[in-house]
Amino acid sequence: MDDLIRQHILPGLKNDALDELGDSARLNLASGSLCFTTDSYVVKPLFFNGGDIGKLAVCGTVNDLAVAGSKPVALALSLIIEDGFEMELLDKILVSVGETARQVGVDIVTGDTKTVESGAADRIFINTAGIGIRLAGVDLGFEKIAVGDKIIINGTIGDHGMTVISQREEMKFRSQLKSDCASLAGLIGELLENTSGIKFMRDPTRGGLAATLNEIARSTALSVEIRETDIPIRPAVQAAADMLGFDVLAIANEGKFVAIVSPESADECLNICRNNKLGKEANIIGEIVGTLDVPLVEIETRIGGKRIVQMPYGRELPRIC
Amino acid sequence: MDDLIRQHILPGLKNDALDELGDSARLNLASGSLCFTTDSYVVKPLFFNGGDIGKLAVCGTVNDLAVAGSKPVALALSLIIEDGFEMELLDKILVSVGETARQVGVDIVTGDTKTVESGAADRIFINTAGIGIRLAGVDLGFEKIAVGDKIIINGTIGDHGMTVISQREEMKFRSQLKSDCASLAGLIGELLENTSGIKFMRDPTRGGLAATLNEIARSTALSVEIRETDIPIRPAVQAAADMLGFDVLAIANEGKFVAIVSPESADECLNICRNNKLGKEANIIGEIVGTLDVPLVEIETRIGGKRIVQMPYGRELPRIC
Repeated sequence: MDDLIRQHILPGLKNDALDELGDSARLNLASGSLCFTTDSYVVKPLFFNGGDIGKLAVCGTVNDLAVAGSKPVALALSLIIEDGFEMELLDKILVSVGETARQVGVDIVTGDTKTVESGAADRIFINTAGIGIRLAGVDLGFEKIAVGDKIIINGTIGDHGMTVISQREEMKFRSQLKSDCASLAGLIGELLENTSGIKFMRDPTRGGLAATLNEIARSTALSVEIRETDIPIRPAVQAAADMLGFDVLAIANEGKFVAIVSPESADECLNICRNNKLGKEANIIGEIVGTLDVPLVEIETRIGGKRIVQMPYGRELPRIC
Repeated sequence: MDDLIRQHILPGLKNDALDELGDSARLNLASGSLCFTTDSYVVKPLFFNGGDIGKLAVCGTVNDLAVAGSKPVALALSLIIEDGFEMELLDKILVSVGETARQVGVDIVTGDTKTVESGAADRIFINTAGIGIRLAGVDLGFEKIAVGDKIIINGTIGDHGMTVISQREEMKFRSQLKSDCASLAGLIGELLENTSGIKFMRDPTRGGLAATLNEIARSTALSVEIRETDIPIRPAVQAAADMLGFDVLAIANEGKFVAIVSPESADECLNICRNNKLGKEANIIGEIVGTLDVPLVEIETRIGGKRIVQMPYGRELPRIC
């Protein structure tokens, strides 16, 4: 275990806090106003077009910190490894973790490694917990959302989920699909620093856009209206979803945020997004509307009708992230 | 998943930060001088005499923060659950998590739950990451350790590891064994507030006392001498270890710390320990000694000889914590 840590895990993740090799990392942050998050990653397959479990574990946790209005600064990395897991693959995953963390500008400051016997885990699971420093003057929350607010998404939906599913199902056109797995910290930081009209942000991962919008409706007691024609979806993603019988609205994304913004600042937000490579296809997809009744998420379909977008229910797709 | 979280996971863990149910918890800490740690728990069996995976997951992470010289304030809880895992057992584990956290005075502020298909994990794995606020004026580290410093342990060794192993092996006298699983945050806080001679602390979990002392020798380039007669060991633990062929020095503990203290403050530290229920059997077990050669950990045996205590090597005992 000591050799595994020193020879395979540490080399790619070098930084002062980690090098101390204490059981805890010591951090001196500019402020004690923090965000703190955790996520376990059990994605299958471990490597997919556009990413792998290592990149996902860094980006997913970084994105949770970013949408909460903080600058991600430190991650903790915990590995559960099945006995017999190939060392070359472990190295490949750790290189990906290290490279992604460097690109994002976040340090892996502490970690843990457990091995379990063959059959007790499916190859490797990764947990990343993260700390972000809250951006001064930024205070996002459901309670800020008001009737008339615009709903912005920074690009196409369903890419991550459909890529993983199609790879698992060995679908023929899977090469046309690519996960959107990416860190949103840069783009979100830019948005929050340069505009003041953002009320709330969330990354629509498990349960996709449908889950995020239903959560907004439930938490605000306001309804949500979106327009199908305004939601960016790649044709290959739509085709894969249709073929396998999935609703793209409920499919996981790993490089997308939903932002609820005041009507006055919507265009400015959109411009900032579209000037960033992670927001080129950003769009206003709908609005927050008042309701006298039960709050709902409704979609205006391509043919002009309306249908309710439900909270995804029943057994969800396992091991998408 | 939503029901699982709202009905089973949240009720026992209630606090303001968690109730927001964001993907990140927002914390306002008194200071940005923090400790940050993570650990995954894969212990088998899930329930053992003296504890369970839930209690272990809280205490283990709290102890990592405490020995680093911080006051634990917030934990993140992440569950990986095998499909088909009994809901009653999950509830029992979560009650244990909640109760232990309350006793320790630490909040579970954020979390994550993933399910994997039957056969892809062994029932349940838990990751807890934690944040502690560094105690003012406390600065522990290997670099503080000097020749003549005393080595204190707060009680008997090997209890946790031998309890788990004996339960797994279904040994007859397993009822006489009980894990020492406990939060050390209170006792350590008391020690660090009331004495100034503590140089370094570590909780000897995996690899036991042998691993911790070897790490000290390696990191300080000083040798360590301990006396077998001064190391508290319960007779049942020694008997179980002898029967199964284990060295108690290398067995995991979950409610113990090793403290390296200046000779002047050793008695004061010992007194504080012995007045606390988690330190009644505390003892000075040895000293830091100079070396002109390779730094070693040596033990003076009961019969007066000396032997080298090696870093535990080879395949370590799996799933002890």
